[in-house]
Amino acid sequence: MAKPTIKELLTTAPQEQTVEVLGWVRNRRGSKQVAFITVNDGSTIHNIQVVVDLNQISEEQLKEVHTGASVRVLGKLVPSQGSGQAVEVQAQEVEVLGPADPEKYPLQPKKHSLEFVRENAHLRARTATFGAVFRVRHHVSYAIHKFFHEEGFFYVHSPIITASDAEGAGAMFRVTTLDLKNPPLTQEGEVNFKEDFFERPTNLTVSGQLEAELMALGLGRVYTFGPTFRAENSNTTRHLAEFWMIEPEAAFYDIHDNMDLAERFVKYVIRHVLEHCADDLAFLEKRLLDEEKSKKESERSPMPLIEKLNFVVENAFERLSYTEAIELLLQSKPQKKNQFQFPVSWGIDLQAEHERYLVEKHFKKPVILTDYPKEIKAFYMKQNDDGKTVRAMDVLFPGIGEIIGGSQREEDYDKLKRRMEEVGISTEEMWWYLDTRRFGSVPHSGFGLGLERFVQFITGMGNIRDVIPFPRTPGNAEF
Amino acid sequence: MAKPTIKELLTTAPQEQTVEVLGWVRNRRGSKQVAFITVNDGSTIHNIQVVVDLNQISEEQLKEVHTGASVRVLGKLVPSQGSGQAVEVQAQEVEVLGPADPEKYPLQPKKHSLEFVRENAHLRARTATFGAVFRVRHHVSYAIHKFFHEEGFFYVHSPIITASDAEGAGAMFRVTTLDLKNPPLTQEGEVNFKEDFFERPTNLTVSGQLEAELMALGLGRVYTFGPTFRAENSNTTRHLAEFWMIEPEAAFYDIHDNMDLAERFVKYVIRHVLEHCADDLAFLEKRLLDEEKSKKESERSPMPLIEKLNFVVENAFERLSYTEAIELLLQSKPQKKNQFQFPVSWGIDLQAEHERYLVEKHFKKPVILTDYPKEIKAFYMKQNDDGKTVRAMDVLFPGIGEIIGGSQREEDYDKLKRRMEEVGISTEEMWWYLDTRRFGSVPHSGFGLGLERFVQFITGMGNIRDVIPFPRTPGNAEF
Repeated sequence: MAKPTIKELLTTAPQEQTVEVLGWVRNRRGSKQVAFITVNDGSTIHNIQVVVDLNQISEEQLKEVHTGASVRVLGKLVPSQGSGQAVEVQAQEVEVLGPADPEKYPLQPKKHSLEFVRENAHLRARTATFGAVFRVRHHVSYAIHKFFHEEGFFYVHSPIITASDAEGAGAMFRVTTLDLKNPPLTQEGEVNFKEDFFERPTNLTVSGQLEAELMALGLGRVYTFGPTFRAENSNTTRHLAEFWMIEPEAAFYDIHDNMDLAERFVKYVIRHVLEHCADDLAFLEKRLLDEEKSKKESERSPMPLIEKLNFVVENAFERLSYTEAIELLLQSKPQKKNQFQFPVSWGIDLQAEHERYLVEKHFKKPVILTDYPKEIKAFYMKQNDDGKTVRAMDVLFPGIGEIIGGSQREEDYDKLKRRMEEVGISTEEMWWYLDTRRFGSVPHSGFGLGLERFVQFITGMGNIRDVIPFPRTPGNAEF
Repeated sequence: MAKPTIKELLTTAPQEQTVEVLGWVRNRRGSKQVAFITVNDGSTIHNIQVVVDLNQISEEQLKEVHTGASVRVLGKLVPSQGSGQAVEVQAQEVEVLGPADPEKYPLQPKKHSLEFVRENAHLRARTATFGAVFRVRHHVSYAIHKFFHEEGFFYVHSPIITASDAEGAGAMFRVTTLDLKNPPLTQEGEVNFKEDFFERPTNLTVSGQLEAELMALGLGRVYTFGPTFRAENSNTTRHLAEFWMIEPEAAFYDIHDNMDLAERFVKYVIRHVLEHCADDLAFLEKRLLDEEKSKKESERSPMPLIEKLNFVVENAFERLSYTEAIELLLQSKPQKKNQFQFPVSWGIDLQAEHERYLVEKHFKKPVILTDYPKEIKAFYMKQNDDGKTVRAMDVLFPGIGEIIGGSQREEDYDKLKRRMEEVGISTEEMWWYLDTRRFGSVPHSGFGLGLERFVQFITGMGNIRDVIPFPRTPGNAEF
């Protein structure tokens, strides 16, 4: 069996039993008589304290015990003398497995900027903040799988390399094995993709939704959980070129089933994290408070981290139509006081400031907006009888606005085909998508959640690059 | 709440209660008096039988009830008259939601070749075989997450777009936003990747291992579960250009911990599938028996499907070194009778025939081979003191041979650097990988499992293209 982790040791009853501690030194302090070494192995935010009696173990033996060094400690597990931990280890042997030269190791025990740590992404999982973030990310991911499994959804892997552009939007990365310097050309002088690996132009997927629909219209309820890509030159704190999406799709679900699913889903995942990551969340909440001390009040989070998570879990989401939301915004105080940066009128794509007003000020609960103007939504959404709107639904959260976007899908072959022609999507290339409406078409619905935005929301990290292990952004594919 | 699935209906106590059946027609038969419609919604291999009294519901109303059509049936849930199912539905209303013209719908209720069905991958989830395969694939995936979660491993997302080649092997796909027709050139006439999206050449990953190592050397125990790519022109039943890999990596694990983990892991997943997919497995076992009837005995599976799965679960894996295995093979009957296609000698890469001999004939249990010649293994494997072998481990299964490949990793900075130089891997480009051995290096181990090969093993599907929803192979990126 595997050796106990520090998380396990910290909750073991101390009976002076001999234990083995394996991990990385976070810090060392002490006096001439005694050294205190805090050790962490990534299993928990908490360090275990190793107490070394310098009369028994010489200073010489500890000379490589610096921050970042890996150690193996044999010692007795005893009740802790200090506060803040239940147990500590009285060292009998201390072995440095791998030193970390304090002149060279970049992550010294002082306050580093997140930017600096990000440049050392290969080592940052060893820090308290990123340990916490990545443990939360794990728990979010696990809860997502658990939720859908329990709801009878099957995990499907939609293709990463694709010849289609799911939404007719979003810049894409080309995938090729052609020689870029001397690509084969056709007689007309165009690149001859017949000679490419797939014998046609291929890209990295921007969404697995269309393929998820194909699967749902056979398996019933499915979800994807995979990487998606945008080749957009967006250097912001909210954009990645490579990110992970979760896209459930369910046959025989109408938009109300879909809203119910989305609400159950986000509450389930957040509740799971609240239950399983309490210590990491407490640490991250404190980190965020510290970070925001230097910010203007208007730029601070609307509420402390854990309160914000409970706000989502404890409130029934308010549901109303886009049209009703526009009415509310037009009547709102910020509108009358000219405080919105972006003007409000029917037909606009709502901005985060509008969404946040609805959530944080007006309803004081998460909001689901439905029935958006068809012009600002994708071709595959079910058309309402009014001829103007589609059966879209966006879930809006405090602090960020839209967290989930989804819809009931157009199941009528003729209406779908007409809409594709209107917006210029090739019905010939997408024959397979239309086929699902030619044969045994059924009402169905689904939505998409960006994993990183959700993890940002849950951890309070301001920059999306800090919630994915190795962020890909313009000019950056290191590690 | 969501509507009950057919899986749920089939296990509901029949009390003449009114139920709603939503699904696709699999088949219709009957007489002038009564029609029997079998309906499936993807939730289970089993269909529900709808019985229509043609005195109450006219033939006219059923005229679009063909294979592939979607229906909504209201009726009474009653004990079934026939054998093979506990309940059936006496129809009160039958509504065709989406017809499927029998002249055009490709998947008619007759025996189709897997090749034909594969060309209709957008519809194949509606067939019994592929429904079973994709449900099993879901359960395999779910059990993988559950296993690692319970073992204290954190799910990490290693990057898909990467500037490095993990193993120094395997043809890669280029990822680019450059204009292929007119790429920007340097003064020297080379493609100027400084102008590409990431300002350097980038590829699709062939393995997440190296990044998993970075994460494990901070978080302790991690695993990846993501897509990987090979741009190899291999048109076989065992190769995909895009497939999913699971790669656990654990700090402070030596090769024995690693073997224990691998054995617990595959047994856990297979046991989960045996428990949760009994009906799908029974169906797939029968399908395989039927398929193999026309094959020569030597080409048939060594044992029936479920027996083979129990064979893995019930046997302690035999562990021995590569060198010992070579000895055994040299002394073996097929070697003496000249029955091996590939010659045996120390230093060779074992072929499936050798691996299968060890598993199926000699030990009659799964086998883990260790300590392979360094020349046939990757640069990052821990070097043994003999100077000839590395601490590799391959898990061998009946029918296929290698299912898992892994190793303890070289944690010594100097040895690793020297080996990289020997095999020509840039130590400058891989500075970040070497950094983990410069700072706080620890013994660690991991392995890789190809999801599709594992699902092939569990489902008995002969062609790897039939266990992934939308296979990518040379010349094929449809859907």
